[in-house]
Amino acid sequence: MSDEEYMQLAYQQACFARDMDEVPIGAIIVKEGEIIATGYNRKESQHDVTAHAEMIAIRKACQKLKSWHLDGCILYSTLEPCIMCSGAIIQSRIEKVVFAAKGQRWHGLSTFLQSHEFNHHPQIVSGILEEQCCLLLSQYFKEKRKHDKS
Amino acid sequence: MSDEEYMQLAYQQACFARDMDEVPIGAIIVKEGEIIATGYNRKESQHDVTAHAEMIAIRKACQKLKSWHLDGCILYSTLEPCIMCSGAIIQSRIEKVVFAAKGQRWHGLSTFLQSHEFNHHPQIVSGILEEQCCLLLSQYFKEKRKHDKS
Repeated sequence: MSDEEYMQLAYQQACFARDMDEVPIGAIIVKEGEIIATGYNRKESQHDVTAHAEMIAIRKACQKLKSWHLDGCILYSTLEPCIMCSGAIIQSRIEKVVFAAKGQRWHGLSTFLQSHEFNHHPQIVSGILEEQCCLLLSQYFKEKRKHDKS
Repeated sequence: MSDEEYMQLAYQQACFARDMDEVPIGAIIVKEGEIIATGYNRKESQHDVTAHAEMIAIRKACQKLKSWHLDGCILYSTLEPCIMCSGAIIQSRIEKVVFAAKGQRWHGLSTFLQSHEFNHHPQIVSGILEEQCCLLLSQYFKEKRKHDKS
């Protein structure tokens, strides 16, 4: 499967978040071609500031591999991981991160890796299905604002 | 209770981690004088890269308050929070962070807050029971090395 095909699955996860009225962000983790974990943002519904799509997927992948090392794993996320998720990515030694939309509000993974020295540097690929994932986010926020005004 | 007394409780948590052969780090979260959450490092035993003392305490506090906002909360940790935990601290809007030992290997909360601009800046107090918490860590690593050599 290609990066676009894997990202399409992360996008499906993001849609699950939207359907629960959560900010639509989805993630999957792949190892040797196998999808070993999925996650979607559940911060509001789970009352948990750490329940980002990437964190949920990372925790599931750790459980699946019975290890906190995720060497050889690729994380696909519909949005650039935030600082918290970046910390988990670096510490778990995820090999590669592929994301769709670039983060804006929070300093994201790519900026963060450029400005600091760490003992693990995942490869970064960005912009895969960017337009589609950005649209999902912007539509969600547009709906939210409409709802907040009514 | 004073910062030292609260830190003593975080230290007790760190001892629970040591007793499970985990790196001895403990944390508690206090709101309006009440201890609302505790946590100790369980990264190895739970096979979870996110199972840092601070993250466990933050997640419990969110559950307790049924909210991902931890406004008005104080986090006590025996070690300076790492980047992942710092991200969770900033996003949960924890008001104040008190830590004992300064982080070395990973860029910690204080360095991180100085080098980036965020829309929330927790107050930082460091060095509370520093010697005691550092000793617990150094003794753990000394024992580990002895064990690894034998």
